[in-house]
Amino acid sequence: MADYDLVVRGGEVATGFGTARCDIGIRDGRIAALAERITDAAATLEAGGLLVLPGGIDSHCHIEEPARGGYVGTVGEPVVTVSEESFVTASTSAFAGGTTSVVCFVPQWKGEGLLPRLADYERRAARGMLDYSFHQIITDPTEAVLEREVPQIVAKGIRSLKVFLTYEPLHLSDEDYIKVLVAARRNGCLVTVHCENYAAIKWRTERLIAAGMSAPKYHAWSRPSVVEREATHRAIALAELVDQPIQVFHVSCEEAAEEIARARHRGLKVWGETCPQYLTLTAEDMDRPGFEGAAFMCSPSPRSREEHARVWEMIRRGTLDIVSSDHCGFSMAGDKGKAVSGRDAPFRDIPNGIPGLAARLPILFSEGVSKGRISLDDFVRLTATNPARLMGLAPRKGLIAVGADADLALWDPAKKVTISNRLMQHAIDYTPYEGLEVTGWPVATVRRGAVVMRDGVVQAEPGTGRFLPRGPYEMVRPRGVLANGFDAAPAG
Amino acid sequence: MADYDLVVRGGEVATGFGTARCDIGIRDGRIAALAERITDAAATLEAGGLLVLPGGIDSHCHIEEPARGGYVGTVGEPVVTVSEESFVTASTSAFAGGTTSVVCFVPQWKGEGLLPRLADYERRAARGMLDYSFHQIITDPTEAVLEREVPQIVAKGIRSLKVFLTYEPLHLSDEDYIKVLVAARRNGCLVTVHCENYAAIKWRTERLIAAGMSAPKYHAWSRPSVVEREATHRAIALAELVDQPIQVFHVSCEEAAEEIARARHRGLKVWGETCPQYLTLTAEDMDRPGFEGAAFMCSPSPRSREEHARVWEMIRRGTLDIVSSDHCGFSMAGDKGKAVSGRDAPFRDIPNGIPGLAARLPILFSEGVSKGRISLDDFVRLTATNPARLMGLAPRKGLIAVGADADLALWDPAKKVTISNRLMQHAIDYTPYEGLEVTGWPVATVRRGAVVMRDGVVQAEPGTGRFLPRGPYEMVRPRGVLANGFDAAPAG
Amino acid sequence: MADYDLVVRGGEVATGFGTARCDIGIRDGRIAALAERITDAAATLEAGGLLVLPGGIDSHCHIEEPARGGYVGTVGEPVVTVSEESFVTASTSAFAGGTTSVVCFVPQWKGEGLLPRLADYERRAARGMLDYSFHQIITDPTEAVLEREVPQIVAKGIRSLKVFLTYEPLHLSDEDYIKVLVAARRNGCLVTVHCENYAAIKWRTERLIAAGMSAPKYHAWSRPSVVEREATHRAIALAELVDQPIQVFHVSCEEAAEEIARARHRGLKVWGETCPQYLTLTAEDMDRPGFEGAAFMCSPSPRSREEHARVWEMIRRGTLDIVSSDHCGFSMAGDKGKAVSGRDAPFRDIPNGIPGLAARLPILFSEGVSKGRISLDDFVRLTATNPARLMGLAPRKGLIAVGADADLALWDPAKKVTISNRLMQHAIDYTPYEGLEVTGWPVATVRRGAVVMRDGVVQAEPGTGRFLPRGPYEMVRPRGVLANGFDAAPAG
Amino acid sequence: MADYDLVVRGGEVATGFGTARCDIGIRDGRIAALAERITDAAATLEAGGLLVLPGGIDSHCHIEEPARGGYVGTVGEPVVTVSEESFVTASTSAFAGGTTSVVCFVPQWKGEGLLPRLADYERRAARGMLDYSFHQIITDPTEAVLEREVPQIVAKGIRSLKVFLTYEPLHLSDEDYIKVLVAARRNGCLVTVHCENYAAIKWRTERLIAAGMSAPKYHAWSRPSVVEREATHRAIALAELVDQPIQVFHVSCEEAAEEIARARHRGLKVWGETCPQYLTLTAEDMDRPGFEGAAFMCSPSPRSREEHARVWEMIRRGTLDIVSSDHCGFSMAGDKGKAVSGRDAPFRDIPNGIPGLAARLPILFSEGVSKGRISLDDFVRLTATNPARLMGLAPRKGLIAVGADADLALWDPAKKVTISNRLMQHAIDYTPYEGLEVTGWPVATVRRGAVVMRDGVVQAEPGTGRFLPRGPYEMVRPRGVLANGFDAAPAG
Repeated sequence: MADYDLVVRGGEVATGFGTARCDIGIRDGRIAALAERITDAAATLEAGGLLVLPGGIDSHCHIEEPARGGYVGTVGEPVVTVSEESFVTASTSAFAGGTTSVVCFVPQWKGEGLLPRLADYERRAARGMLDYSFHQIITDPTEAVLEREVPQIVAKGIRSLKVFLTYEPLHLSDEDYIKVLVAARRNGCLVTVHCENYAAIKWRTERLIAAGMSAPKYHAWSRPSVVEREATHRAIALAELVDQPIQVFHVSCEEAAEEIARARHRGLKVWGETCPQYLTLTAEDMDRPGFEGAAFMCSPSPRSREEHARVWEMIRRGTLDIVSSDHCGFSMAGDKGKAVSGRDAPFRDIPNGIPGLAARLPILFSEGVSKGRISLDDFVRLTATNPARLMGLAPRKGLIAVGADADLALWDPAKKVTISNRLMQHAIDYTPYEGLEVTGWPVATVRRGAVVMRDGVVQAEPGTGRFLPRGPYEMVRPRGVLANGFDAAPAG
Repeated sequence: MADYDLVVRGGEVATGFGTARCDIGIRDGRIAALAERITDAAATLEAGGLLVLPGGIDSHCHIEEPARGGYVGTVGEPVVTVSEESFVTASTSAFAGGTTSVVCFVPQWKGEGLLPRLADYERRAARGMLDYSFHQIITDPTEAVLEREVPQIVAKGIRSLKVFLTYEPLHLSDEDYIKVLVAARRNGCLVTVHCENYAAIKWRTERLIAAGMSAPKYHAWSRPSVVEREATHRAIALAELVDQPIQVFHVSCEEAAEEIARARHRGLKVWGETCPQYLTLTAEDMDRPGFEGAAFMCSPSPRSREEHARVWEMIRRGTLDIVSSDHCGFSMAGDKGKAVSGRDAPFRDIPNGIPGLAARLPILFSEGVSKGRISLDDFVRLTATNPARLMGLAPRKGLIAVGADADLALWDPAKKVTISNRLMQHAIDYTPYEGLEVTGWPVATVRRGAVVMRDGVVQAEPGTGRFLPRGPYEMVRPRGVLANGFDAAPAG
Repeated sequence: MADYDLVVRGGEVATGFGTARCDIGIRDGRIAALAERITDAAATLEAGGLLVLPGGIDSHCHIEEPARGGYVGTVGEPVVTVSEESFVTASTSAFAGGTTSVVCFVPQWKGEGLLPRLADYERRAARGMLDYSFHQIITDPTEAVLEREVPQIVAKGIRSLKVFLTYEPLHLSDEDYIKVLVAARRNGCLVTVHCENYAAIKWRTERLIAAGMSAPKYHAWSRPSVVEREATHRAIALAELVDQPIQVFHVSCEEAAEEIARARHRGLKVWGETCPQYLTLTAEDMDRPGFEGAAFMCSPSPRSREEHARVWEMIRRGTLDIVSSDHCGFSMAGDKGKAVSGRDAPFRDIPNGIPGLAARLPILFSEGVSKGRISLDDFVRLTATNPARLMGLAPRKGLIAVGADADLALWDPAKKVTISNRLMQHAIDYTPYEGLEVTGWPVATVRRGAVVMRDGVVQAEPGTGRFLPRGPYEMVRPRGVLANGFDAAPAG
Repeated sequence: MADYDLVVRGGEVATGFGTARCDIGIRDGRIAALAERITDAAATLEAGGLLVLPGGIDSHCHIEEPARGGYVGTVGEPVVTVSEESFVTASTSAFAGGTTSVVCFVPQWKGEGLLPRLADYERRAARGMLDYSFHQIITDPTEAVLEREVPQIVAKGIRSLKVFLTYEPLHLSDEDYIKVLVAARRNGCLVTVHCENYAAIKWRTERLIAAGMSAPKYHAWSRPSVVEREATHRAIALAELVDQPIQVFHVSCEEAAEEIARARHRGLKVWGETCPQYLTLTAEDMDRPGFEGAAFMCSPSPRSREEHARVWEMIRRGTLDIVSSDHCGFSMAGDKGKAVSGRDAPFRDIPNGIPGLAARLPILFSEGVSKGRISLDDFVRLTATNPARLMGLAPRKGLIAVGADADLALWDPAKKVTISNRLMQHAIDYTPYEGLEVTGWPVATVRRGAVVMRDGVVQAEPGTGRFLPRGPYEMVRPRGVLANGFDAAPAG
């Protein structure tokens, strides 16, 4: 019997510090050896001329997520729907794009507890091929939920609570947000936050629609960056009060990122994420003829070319230290277009979100590494190492090292590809990046030692994805500071 | 008949730019002439060796204000009370301290309209000797209030709406605050804001009291400066969204002031006020034995000596451009001590607020001018010129100039006085500044040409105070910027 | 005999706090009364419908200044020349533009002492009609100069030393600059500084010229804003070390101004001046055909439209608190064009400087007040009050107050004028502002009670200008901080 | 023959992203394999229970450096001396402390060229056991040096030029510094800078000594942090002008570090280094009785406990990204004490510098990792990965990866040691850290596969150290920005 089940041979292996040319010996799904030359292997994957990167970790995806009360961001009737992307289609799309693990969202519906919904979602997730973990959304932080259920879900290894500060059916008041922070602190989990001011967006939306400004492009008008900055500052300030670490999701602009930078300067544990859409799409994309602009609608809204440059700078400065997709797809011929009153619906009633699972790594590689904005090491940190670490998946995931899961993306840094929806291999009928030319493309994907994608062809058995119980977030910033020196106050 | 009713002779008259030695000729209550020598006068007030300053304008005072639902800051039963300080006692105290005009507060009670309460308050105010104008408090911004009543009160010359972002019975939600901002914008009035985060204070207060930490000193623990910074940033951000100027009241600390400085740097019309308590009192003052600490309780809480130094710097930098008293007195033997469950009441149930009408000018002069922290010109700006201008009382009030009302404080800059409650001449049974030694003291006060105080003796007929209809706030910072460039959005 | 020699009747008199409609009674050249109505006057100047402003104080002008070694900014042969603008022509130009006092520069030539040159310059200045004081330039800070001569010139009331950190024959090393700071501290005078890095400009200039890039427009290329920021920071840091107040002259860009703002935030006494050229001219103006670009050459270089907006903001923030002209004229047909090798001379050899004495107030009024960027009060502060105060001329100059010199500019705020060189009434054959349309214009100028300009016609006797001995600069920012707490170090 | 010459077995191997438990297979001095279990080895080093870290790289050491004109920092007679630490003693000390490579300094003496001195220094360095590279000091940047010699030394793989902005015999003027920047840019090398203002220190030193304040403690008084901030800003600004990357050496305080942070925010390639002395020693250490304070004298001066906390924060923020020793030892019984006029010499005449080669890693580990201020990954980056990368030694040095040199430090994270001079194993007769207790200690050191230290016993053959030719610095920050947009200017 061979020493190794698979050897990845002759690639330039990313170490997080440049690359090393070496073979990777895989046994039982894990990396067992990195060596100049490994011969005794049952199978071989040639990587000559390719980069070998850790498989991507997408720590912010909406997959097969049941929703009640209309879609995220809309105000429709209380119907129940499930997002079009199933765990099977999502796995295919992820593998096509070099991603091997995701963290997705267990919903809570108002008036309900967490556990039944979680049980349902666990069943759904188990059907896919991707490795996965969950954020638990909290929309109704009753005492029962926080005192009894949260400890149980944390015991299962779900170590982050997601809250919304906007959206009609989801947003928490400051009082409820504080309750969640306190529960998270007691249970040692991270809180992840969608930061936009609910009341401000509501007011602006009503005014716009009342004035007949209801086309998709007015989505951007309804939520200027000041509403994101406000909520970001508030989310941080209340976390500061409670002494609870948070991650700010999908930062779209410098002024929100600056609040994170200021918080870090005060010594706080606050992390910021951004997404490819905030580096490539603009508010003007929503001003395409007819309903087409709806294809680019997500929240926060895409901004401008000038803002892209500032977001890149915030990435370089380390203020934004994770790039996820916020994949949340709705087909134009399906849920986007059918929303409530159809393709003439005002922007308020169109589901928010765009697909991006497969596009995330190629876009960030091309716009970042190939164009010289970030280094290859930055790319690895932003897409694999940092998410693994912050999500508590390290050292099992996120780096090519002995003992880690053998999750790999073999990358051709010179390959030029024009993005098309077909290449995305997802369930959605469009990609907002259609026609974008990228340099650099994944040519094979390995998940726990299995070659699940080669040259765009995905081969993996449904049900082979594994749940990833998570440990506590790692203290990327080791200093703990309780706000204002009132250390003796009974914080929780 | 003499040319002038009164001549103030031989003083060093503050010009806002140093002093000029000249006589002041007063006719019909106004300054008719400033000249080297004026002889033809019916009466003379000798000012040799004294500074002649514009009479103080205290743009933030609570006088004879009816309250329902317990005092400001408490959670008691819905009883109706009126603050102990009447317009007569307040006028006496103000004149004793060199102040000649005030802006005080018309309450709104939830479920009620504005006009009946205003009518009642107008009657009360008319009994005093001080000149006065009003801020209109908004606690229940119904459509009727904003659409119908606000235009009427603005037409009367009441050009500022006051809102609270904290206090159980008073605080506005973000939605309601936005409504008030929009109404103010439409009617051309200023919005003044008490900035502390309601939910954060509530949470901390409940925890403290549950932990048995209920003595007065825990008032400071319940509201650390982060809750003030949060609300200040939010108040500004939403005003930025609506494009409405605001004044942030009683800024107690650098981190809140810094938000104002940042807003100004963005070109916004945001002004900041502070008070003598934030330059002299500390959280430790509330840690005196027994109930005595309650004498120093106000909101925001007094901070620390180190913070005083930072607030002075923010005054010097022009970020904090008005110093008011936030006079809000409750006697220790009266309302402070009798609150709800008496002198053993937890801090939450003790009325917030301290008296300061008479003490404001002497403390600021002594700690500021006499100690070299600010110049005499700064003093005049902070206590008279800036309030007059921002409140829309200029050029009638706030400067010694031909045509202005003859409101004057004759000041002995070298006189040393130890502050005692007797000298305050107010209705309250204590002053938090008892025993403080000051250098510089008002020896006479002139209100519209009448000598209403000499050597501490106040002589003025009740009912001689005049209502001051106000014009729009002046554009101290002339640039108008609508947030985020969405200029075409229907803002209101 | 009438009580007053002259009454200015019925104007809107600037008080520094809006305006008051009143008459101004003048006796013996000083303001003796401000009153609603003054009748008993020997003469009357009608001011109905006009603003009455304090006469402008231009605290930075080069007038009839002898130079050796070529002009300022050039590297020519050691010839001696005198700038074309005499005190008579400068007085005419100043009066035409509403300015009544100047502070100009006594040169020091290397190897020489101060006093003989001062005696010569005093004779020249006494021939004019303007009131005047001097900055003493220091280029050779020998022990004799600093120990013996500086005390003597300070005793004469010359209370500022001017140093250059650039220009071939003028710039001081850090060692010499420190010596001047120490001498200034010992003698209680201000140090004013031209802040650009000598070595950096020299290097860039040599490279440009070696590369054949020698046209006037390359003047801007030779001195990008980073060289101004560097020298500004250094000038401040060394002043901080010595604990000596300084004024940074002619700040042209935000990045240099930001250094001043940072210094103030540290509590330092640092003031910043800017000039109309940095609010209206651009580097592109130097790219006109042929030699014409030379007409716009001054140092620092004009920047860009975007930079103008930032400089306005720095004015509004109070970081730049004085606007002077830096008048330094060379005729195109004269010294500019004749420089060294003539109109084909490389930019390095063309004298730096532009005329601006008459244009300063109309441009600042029009671009500032008429266009809504600053208030009338700001205008008065920037052009009269602040220079008077910082230069130690207050309260004799800079404000309309009883006892002050009767220096006035009667201003028609609605008058539209197209600037032409004829209107400037100076000795120079061009104005860089030719063709600029302004709203607001001075229609009469009064100097110590004498009407010296009416409707553009200047009438004043040469030799009637007076030397203004100056007191110490006023402590506009009252805090004194010695760098780094080394208070006990023997600073000087 | 065995596959591997040496196997390091069973340690927790630092990956830069936590640790992996694995064996390290070494062949021909390089890491040939990392694997779960490696058996076929000629020799074994047990690492169970230990951390295996990359061998330390100390990129700032003064070893066996000949000096003329007195020691660094003094003003003595032009004698020639060689620093007491030879390459043999330095190698012993480095290995004792877990360090395996150094970058040290080739001097240039004024009036001389580079190559003869380099030849001499190469001979000295070749006698040691450490791997080494050089910074080339430039004190006399003549055309011959910059045009002819710099290309030759760069061709040898010496890719950094070191300049001083202070010290009597060493400091460069701005003009000369610019010349060095231009030469570095042309030759693709880094410039490293000692940033303190020469003239300011000179002035303060003269004043102090004239006032009789000459004891060692006045060394700190002579160079407050403002002089470091000034020179740091200037060094950056001129590098910005030339578009040349620099590293700021030995940053001792927040205000200097802040200049680096600001520069990075502008997109510049500027890196900052600090040293253990700025995290542990204070100015008060120099105030010990008699001459003892001289033991702590280095430049910049140690600051205060408060400053240590700020420097740690700047490390955490990534502004200071390398920690070196600035090892520069002078024995108390030797050069420190014998300086010029002996132990009564004024501080100016005492050689600057302290030994720290062996102490660097244990102190940073203990004060940083063991006390929770930084993570283990931070430690690895600061002491090995970042220096390797910035010095152009990667990927050969600085990380444990296949293909890299087998330079390792086996570290017992729990071992408690009290630092004593004996443990330092250097040639100097004291350590400034005597008595400091540390947690964590190196128990074995491997240099290119040879075990050169075990349990404190160093065994290595003189002459086995290798010269490390360096590649270009890596673009840790990938953006290139030329100052002020004058991209077309002929920069060099």
